[in-house]
Amino acid sequence: MATTHHKLIILGGGPAGLTAGLYAARARMDHLLIEKGAEGGQILLTDWIDNYPGFPDGISGFDLAEKMTAQAKRFEMKSMFGNVVSMDLSSPIKLLELEDGATLSCDTLIICSGAHPRPLGIPGEKEFTGKGVSYCATCDAPFYRNQHVAVVGGGNTAVQEAAHLTKFADKVTLIHRRDELRADKILQERAFANPKVDFIWNTIATAIEGKDGVERLQLQGTDGNKSSLKVDGVFILIGVLPNNKMLPLDVLNADEEGFIPTDLETRTVVKGVMAAGDIRSKEVRQVINAAGEGATAVLAAEQYLSNL
Amino acid sequence: MATTHHKLIILGGGPAGLTAGLYAARARMDHLLIEKGAEGGQILLTDWIDNYPGFPDGISGFDLAEKMTAQAKRFEMKSMFGNVVSMDLSSPIKLLELEDGATLSCDTLIICSGAHPRPLGIPGEKEFTGKGVSYCATCDAPFYRNQHVAVVGGGNTAVQEAAHLTKFADKVTLIHRRDELRADKILQERAFANPKVDFIWNTIATAIEGKDGVERLQLQGTDGNKSSLKVDGVFILIGVLPNNKMLPLDVLNADEEGFIPTDLETRTVVKGVMAAGDIRSKEVRQVINAAGEGATAVLAAEQYLSNL
Repeated sequence: MATTHHKLIILGGGPAGLTAGLYAARARMDHLLIEKGAEGGQILLTDWIDNYPGFPDGISGFDLAEKMTAQAKRFEMKSMFGNVVSMDLSSPIKLLELEDGATLSCDTLIICSGAHPRPLGIPGEKEFTGKGVSYCATCDAPFYRNQHVAVVGGGNTAVQEAAHLTKFADKVTLIHRRDELRADKILQERAFANPKVDFIWNTIATAIEGKDGVERLQLQGTDGNKSSLKVDGVFILIGVLPNNKMLPLDVLNADEEGFIPTDLETRTVVKGVMAAGDIRSKEVRQVINAAGEGATAVLAAEQYLSNL
Repeated sequence: MATTHHKLIILGGGPAGLTAGLYAARARMDHLLIEKGAEGGQILLTDWIDNYPGFPDGISGFDLAEKMTAQAKRFEMKSMFGNVVSMDLSSPIKLLELEDGATLSCDTLIICSGAHPRPLGIPGEKEFTGKGVSYCATCDAPFYRNQHVAVVGGGNTAVQEAAHLTKFADKVTLIHRRDELRADKILQERAFANPKVDFIWNTIATAIEGKDGVERLQLQGTDGNKSSLKVDGVFILIGVLPNNKMLPLDVLNADEEGFIPTDLETRTVVKGVMAAGDIRSKEVRQVINAAGEGATAVLAAEQYLSNL
């Protein structure tokens, strides 16, 4: 098959990619956005987004994705569905190989392939995602005012978010598979001192159950004892994983977790290649900063192209 | 007067500050946002915003500011009107002095003081500001119904506002010091297609003259040729300068233009002090990335506080 060339390819159609598409289209750059699934990315999994500025009453993830897509298309964003399986970034002309064997090339590439929460992989988890199962306390804590929620995890995020959840929930039960937390000592101390947080040690969640929403967790101790815990919600905070299978991680100098390091303007170590949104090596992963980085990345791409 | 202490103070109520306020309020942090004028910042001066993702048909600057404010207040963002005139960042407890003599203190500070239009610095400019010289087409365009106005500049703002001005003015002359515009291609195309807009290239304005108001501009070409242009008003749209008068620039290691350098997570060189939005030393100044940085800054503040 022939190789189609564009000045800019945007890999991924979540908030970072769609914002990059909007900016690229408005700048009348020769561009193409490639999305594997549906435009919107992870926000499609988010029932309700209360912290994307501009929507006083919040907005569903689906509606926000639709609005972002419509806006970019109003300015004639070009996009296609396709699954990029590998790429070669060793020359100024970057090559992308798709699952169907087609090849695309570009002068500049904005990687917005995103990330996904590390799942527990237990029954009920998929079924109740957005209906009591959450992977983001920052997003969803206010929904659990005066309720009882469980947090699964033992790292900084889990322990910090457990404390955060007590600002809303009446009771937070942290479930950890070991007998001590991995989180920073100071976070641990605070959690231990918080009367609203209790702990179940040496225990894993084996199933999430309920009717229309989460009602209880099935638990199993390392000693084999089984039990059941009545909860209104469960936060699974055991990390996020980068969507990086198609990326040359060594060339991009990926961090130890597989995310892509960039400078302030989203430039990676490879000239002409930017990374924006959750795939970027950074501490804060939110819809609003992913979108902001998409805009920044296009301006960085324009600057790179104007110096070619 | 007594000093009131907060864990977090947010300085400025533009998109970065309002997003920081939203995130701080949702995180139930003890916070206070201080705004000098009206909430919204520079976007209040923007007639129409087409590139803030989530609004397919665009939104007025006024409406976006109102929506962001309403959203933050829904989560009980605390704010006050006040003019910070100086601050002392030398101790872990940061001190802010207000114009009325009051003092506020905080553990963490997010600087979102923004930027303001850059003046030309030519004779007549100050004298006729508000009498024919304007830095805001949105604010002042309706005064020039059926008249002839000049726009000085060549970037997105200048070209967009030139088009906006044609809704009122009979004729808009854009004066640019180069032979091509810096603005996005789509904005250029629209301006070139607009019969009410004409262009004077390779030319600078050297003086603004008149009696009770602006009557003419003195111009000089890069070839040395001098000329005069009869106009009823002039809009100066040539970029921005940081709002940094209240900041200890040496302590914050400000760049040569007076903007504040930060790391990827918006942290300045002073522990516990973040900078977000247009005041940040960076290449891309857009509403969407200002908002994104406001969110990042609050998470950085939370992390700092949790290690105190």
